[in-house]
Amino acid sequence: MLSSSSLPCRTPSLLPNPNPNPNPNPNRSLLLLRPHGRCCRRGAPPVLAMDAAQPFDFESRASDLLERQSKLKIAIVGFGNFGQFLARTFARQGHTLLAHSRSDHSAAAASVGAAFFRDPHDLCECHPDVVLLATSILSAERVLRSLPLQRLRRSTLFVDVLSVKEFPKNLFLQLLPPHFDILCTHPMFGPESAKDGWAGLPFVYDKVRLADADDRLDRCANFLDIFSREGCRMVEMPCGEHDEIAAESQFLTHTVGRVVAKLDLKPTPINTKGYEMLLKLVENTCSDSFDLYNGLFMYNKNSTELLERLDVAFDSLKKELFGRLHDRLRKQLFESSQSLTGS
Amino acid sequence: MLSSSSLPCRTPSLLPNPNPNPNPNPNRSLLLLRPHGRCCRRGAPPVLAMDAAQPFDFESRASDLLERQSKLKIAIVGFGNFGQFLARTFARQGHTLLAHSRSDHSAAAASVGAAFFRDPHDLCECHPDVVLLATSILSAERVLRSLPLQRLRRSTLFVDVLSVKEFPKNLFLQLLPPHFDILCTHPMFGPESAKDGWAGLPFVYDKVRLADADDRLDRCANFLDIFSREGCRMVEMPCGEHDEIAAESQFLTHTVGRVVAKLDLKPTPINTKGYEMLLKLVENTCSDSFDLYNGLFMYNKNSTELLERLDVAFDSLKKELFGRLHDRLRKQLFESSQSLTGS
Repeated sequence: MLSSSSLPCRTPSLLPNPNPNPNPNPNRSLLLLRPHGRCCRRGAPPVLAMDAAQPFDFESRASDLLERQSKLKIAIVGFGNFGQFLARTFARQGHTLLAHSRSDHSAAAASVGAAFFRDPHDLCECHPDVVLLATSILSAERVLRSLPLQRLRRSTLFVDVLSVKEFPKNLFLQLLPPHFDILCTHPMFGPESAKDGWAGLPFVYDKVRLADADDRLDRCANFLDIFSREGCRMVEMPCGEHDEIAAESQFLTHTVGRVVAKLDLKPTPINTKGYEMLLKLVENTCSDSFDLYNGLFMYNKNSTELLERLDVAFDSLKKELFGRLHDRLRKQLFESSQSLTGS
Repeated sequence: MLSSSSLPCRTPSLLPNPNPNPNPNPNRSLLLLRPHGRCCRRGAPPVLAMDAAQPFDFESRASDLLERQSKLKIAIVGFGNFGQFLARTFARQGHTLLAHSRSDHSAAAASVGAAFFRDPHDLCECHPDVVLLATSILSAERVLRSLPLQRLRRSTLFVDVLSVKEFPKNLFLQLLPPHFDILCTHPMFGPESAKDGWAGLPFVYDKVRLADADDRLDRCANFLDIFSREGCRMVEMPCGEHDEIAAESQFLTHTVGRVVAKLDLKPTPINTKGYEMLLKLVENTCSDSFDLYNGLFMYNKNSTELLERLDVAFDSLKKELFGRLHDRLRKQLFESSQSLTGS
């Protein structure tokens, strides 16, 4: 493991770009850019033919610069299964990654080129652009309270990826000083459901609080762009609405999967297609931890109502079945009593 | 509609072949066959080169004959959704079809080239090789009792395709005279799950009672061959074992689908993959009639136990969730009372 005390911030901090449109005259300013983005004005004549290959390939250097400017330094706080899953894509896209968690995940961090920090003070002193909270729902509050917020730049963007949304929104608003930006998100997939890529999978987000400055809006856009580049279906939605819908979809699905899992079903020689779907559903939902499921219940106020509706639905189905059974039996009883008494 | 009284049996009755191996000397007897399978002995010289094309193509005629001999005259009793679904494949394979049901399904029958009979007496007088009971589970007994069994040949093979198996087995054994053959089957698919063909789908059967005569065993094999030709996975299994397994697979799947259907779920903009599986399961199970589901419950003695197990599983999951909620609250209560009282 890298010792956090011996590890300085190895990556230069990317200061937010103070000018969101740095290139009002592209033909001219492209010429003035050097590989490392520093300006030089040495009286070189302006070159107007943009598409011809130039000896120093200014166009490609300029686009490299823009690409570099869109790269973020992201601190992933909570580097478990889901944090590592996200990190692999962040790293592939060229972002600088820092990782922090209570357990020692230094090997996993090293495998994606992320620096691992045990001490949150060291992490925060690296001045990440984005602090991404990727803990379990249950430990989110404790972990957030453990961060020395005063060591971060005051402009830091906080993002969460929890499967409920009202709870982290309120937690952020309550615990973070007003100078931090807040983006609540829910990538509605995981290592199992997105093993073939993220394309077409929903990514929900709510821009809870963003300072009205171009560089901070750009940074948020750059973060969201990580997911749109992978082909996610980007859905902007208030946290409250997310939780209402998610109780009826995600929490319900997990509940059904976990109830059926308790029956300890085996594949049979005579599986119907429907039964195979059910087995797949069980496999899919139970590959997530019980803590996640418990979090979906405990931290979504709509979940209790959903459980009650499910209870009512199950009771009503049983009543229909037993009612018909009773009807048939009663009919037989009456028929036999009629044939005894009469005609 | 074809009037049943005006409709004689239009297809020649295919008498069971008394000799299961009719061709001990193929080179000789092939020569002696005529297109319609009648024998002639007019002293033609034997031809020994079987693979050369012959002016009268005896080889192909002989195989045509064998093919014709494997064709069955099948009376489908109960010509609803499922009976019609099976009939389409039977017809494509060249079997002769007769159909009977209380409702007028003469148009559907005509569309697959089947003769439709309103009057079961007319149907039975046609002497089908196979009587296939394809009613709903709930009406099976009433329909079977309505058939004039005395008009059938004593060697008739009775087959059912009900989704429970102990019940029709006992019904057949109880109501059919001992000279009839009995085969209980369950094609574990339907118009929805097998819309792309039957390949790989399970077909369960139990040879409940077959007279020990080659022609009757061959006829049963010919009937089963309809399903193996389509690529079904043929599973021979006692009726009791089928019902035990089916309660835990098919009835459970339908129950889950119908409970969830009662929640009246809609697709959302943020469907997870798991939730889409659940919606598909609902669609799949609710495309079958409630009568089928009710039949799976009422006529399978293992279903009540399955409902009870599901009840216990749901309760136990709720207890886990509410237990953890309570634990957390209690911890907070104790912590706050400790901080009030002391230290």
